[in-house]
Amino acid sequence: MADSPNCDLKSLSPLQLFERVTEQGEKVRALKAGKAPKDEIDAAVRMLLSLKLSYKTTTGQDYRAGLPPKDLLLINNGTTKEEEEDEDLVDPWNVQTSNAKGVDYDKLIVRFGSSKIDTDLINRIERATGQKPHHFLRRGIFFSHRDMDQILDAYENKKSFYLYTGRGPSSQAMHVGHLIPFMFTKWLQEVFDVPLVIQLTDDEKYLWKDMTVEKAYEYAKENAKDIIACGFDINKTFIFSDLDYLGASPGFYKNIVKVQKHVTFNQVKGIFGFTDSDCIGKISFPAIQAAPSFSSSFPQIFSGKENIQCLIPCAIDQDPYFRMTRDVAPRIGQPKPALLHSVFFPALQGAQTKMSASDPNSSIFLTDTPKQIKTKINKHAFSGGRDTIEEHRKYGGNCDVDVSFMYLTFFLEDDDRLEQLKQAYTSGELLTGELKKVLIETMQPLVAAHQERRKQVTDEVVKQFMTPRKLAFEF
Amino acid sequence: MADSPNCDLKSLSPLQLFERVTEQGEKVRALKAGKAPKDEIDAAVRMLLSLKLSYKTTTGQDYRAGLPPKDLLLINNGTTKEEEEDEDLVDPWNVQTSNAKGVDYDKLIVRFGSSKIDTDLINRIERATGQKPHHFLRRGIFFSHRDMDQILDAYENKKSFYLYTGRGPSSQAMHVGHLIPFMFTKWLQEVFDVPLVIQLTDDEKYLWKDMTVEKAYEYAKENAKDIIACGFDINKTFIFSDLDYLGASPGFYKNIVKVQKHVTFNQVKGIFGFTDSDCIGKISFPAIQAAPSFSSSFPQIFSGKENIQCLIPCAIDQDPYFRMTRDVAPRIGQPKPALLHSVFFPALQGAQTKMSASDPNSSIFLTDTPKQIKTKINKHAFSGGRDTIEEHRKYGGNCDVDVSFMYLTFFLEDDDRLEQLKQAYTSGELLTGELKKVLIETMQPLVAAHQERRKQVTDEVVKQFMTPRKLAFEF
Repeated sequence: MADSPNCDLKSLSPLQLFERVTEQGEKVRALKAGKAPKDEIDAAVRMLLSLKLSYKTTTGQDYRAGLPPKDLLLINNGTTKEEEEDEDLVDPWNVQTSNAKGVDYDKLIVRFGSSKIDTDLINRIERATGQKPHHFLRRGIFFSHRDMDQILDAYENKKSFYLYTGRGPSSQAMHVGHLIPFMFTKWLQEVFDVPLVIQLTDDEKYLWKDMTVEKAYEYAKENAKDIIACGFDINKTFIFSDLDYLGASPGFYKNIVKVQKHVTFNQVKGIFGFTDSDCIGKISFPAIQAAPSFSSSFPQIFSGKENIQCLIPCAIDQDPYFRMTRDVAPRIGQPKPALLHSVFFPALQGAQTKMSASDPNSSIFLTDTPKQIKTKINKHAFSGGRDTIEEHRKYGGNCDVDVSFMYLTFFLEDDDRLEQLKQAYTSGELLTGELKKVLIETMQPLVAAHQERRKQVTDEVVKQFMTPRKLAFEF
Repeated sequence: MADSPNCDLKSLSPLQLFERVTEQGEKVRALKAGKAPKDEIDAAVRMLLSLKLSYKTTTGQDYRAGLPPKDLLLINNGTTKEEEEDEDLVDPWNVQTSNAKGVDYDKLIVRFGSSKIDTDLINRIERATGQKPHHFLRRGIFFSHRDMDQILDAYENKKSFYLYTGRGPSSQAMHVGHLIPFMFTKWLQEVFDVPLVIQLTDDEKYLWKDMTVEKAYEYAKENAKDIIACGFDINKTFIFSDLDYLGASPGFYKNIVKVQKHVTFNQVKGIFGFTDSDCIGKISFPAIQAAPSFSSSFPQIFSGKENIQCLIPCAIDQDPYFRMTRDVAPRIGQPKPALLHSVFFPALQGAQTKMSASDPNSSIFLTDTPKQIKTKINKHAFSGGRDTIEEHRKYGGNCDVDVSFMYLTFFLEDDDRLEQLKQAYTSGELLTGELKKVLIETMQPLVAAHQERRKQVTDEVVKQFMTPRKLAFEF
């Protein structure tokens, strides 16, 4: 799944090694069956043995045919060797780390083979758009990318692209963490002036959850209201439910079936950890999340033009879908989508995991009242402050693990104010209760304003956003 | 619908097959030793039997553990081993038997758990429709069913149903064997006066073959012409390509995803023999062939009415798809489809396998000229006659293995004439050349008439048949 064609064995991930052993085993069998010359067979067998040894050294396990390594997405966390036993778990359904600072994102970049969004790239985005970079970029909230430089190369040569992001409508209620990719996507749409497609994977939620098709579709439409309330331009944005649009666009289905032809069960087993007991809907679903990366899935938007470059802003846990997509793209004659990855939004209780809509206390919901917001933050927001006021004054608080401070880096746009708060908290001048008060005063108007905008979003407006149609662009 | 041999197994060398049998045997032993669930063991045993049969068909030898095949290609011609006790191999991609009489259909009924179409059922169909039963019923060509009695119960109580059949458009050229289900379906539609949907699984052919999406769709439209030329009523028949209709009907996709949620990889592995190296498109495809069994896949035909009973006439090799469908149906609140199964249409070379569009000499194609038909029958039709005229006059021919006689049971409608031919051939009065002449004189006008009707089928007519629309029925 990695993009790099050739690398030495030491740099291979356990899964890559597993795949190399499997391939080599098949090669040996083919040589034997084809009665190849003995020295050719012997060389292939030696290679197989050496691959198996590398596999064992890397994983600590013997290679077993058909059993890929389990720790594919378990990445080492922690800065010292002693801590390496604690591993971050990052895949589309799980984010877990034992470190209160959260997932180690630099290691994730190495592990996933993506690139860091560095100052050069941020400066380049500023030059290309003529706009001050979004604070999500300035503060490392969108921290990793794939091929963003190619997007900018093309953009500087007047070649446009389109944005694709999405959401799995698992419940009616969305929390503030869900807004992060949409807030950033809205900014990208504005500064680059490009069309946007938003996929609501109601079919995925039906397949994964104990939920009817009708309920999943209803959640999709409800979630669309919250997404629209972020302020997307109706003339430049197409929102679609899979259950709806897959059955309304032969172009979309054709891309799905093309992806499905080029991905094996072995591959999705390795990437997503599926097992033989999983339903065939789950097994083939990754192709449905892949297909909107290709502009031919939306002939109505692009007037049938194919091969328009796609840029996907998403949380890093969605990357496995798009690593798969990028692997398949050239084999079906499509450009690889580019990506911008965000960090996870932490739960109120601490950065060990991301917020979850299923635990009401882990999240500030978009439906929460000012009072609920205040209570939740005061009661549940994990503090990096000291146990007593005296100690806090003396030693100061720890912004690296303080969830209130983390939330402010997401939602407080004023850089100077944030820096002041950081210094005051770290020095002990600012107490936990005072920091929480700043967060409460930031979140209450933000959520209230969202609720106000959402009220304006009628069923009719949702219907318009979700109607396949031409957008205000010429390609 | 699949009608082509499994390239996987067929393309394997005897040694590769030997290794596959050995591996599968080890797997079965491991499953038994590990006390795996019964259905998993059963599936593995079925796979083992299939592999052993392929091994035997390819090498002409029984598989013996530890004794790899010595000779590369000893194909058993099967004409002298009528006492073979081996199981026939029948699945959507393989039809293989070592018996020249063809597959043992009585055994297949027991193995598949379907019911025999007996005289009582045929008489009941005659009473219900007021029509003489089709010669495919009278002659046991449609020989097995599931729940046909329930269809008749409901029909007698003025409760209607709809017909569903299909074809996998693997090439432009169809042969006369492909017409069997359509000829019978046309008769059913006429005598019961019910609507009919015909699925062209161009997506399946794209997934299984080395073929582009565009080519598969082109074949679908070309095949539709041959199907329409069978004389279906445009007001009562909807023909659809999956690549087209799946992307044009949310109702269809919703049923597909419902089936996909209720079938695991373990199940399709057991039913269809998929492996971990198969692409995820193949693995999820069975749901796409299942979904037209539910009337809610066609809201335009049934005015949105659900739970209308479906009857599927098809060759017995398609039954695995519908066993799966019938298993899922009650779990997604849908009625089980009923089925009528036909025998296979034999290859000219003999009844050990069915005709294949990929071997031009195994088939009489719908595009063949009278001269080609004559040459093929004279040159390739396997004869049940004796080696010399003297022996033939003395001992008579064997209609059970004579392909010309078999073809006449399919295409010569006159019962008396067929019986006369049988007696004359069996007694030795009629020579092989004379029997072949009767077949040639039967097939030439039949194919010519088909070609004449096909010429009338314009692209515009195809488009009308393939447009989702209301049919001339009220439900």
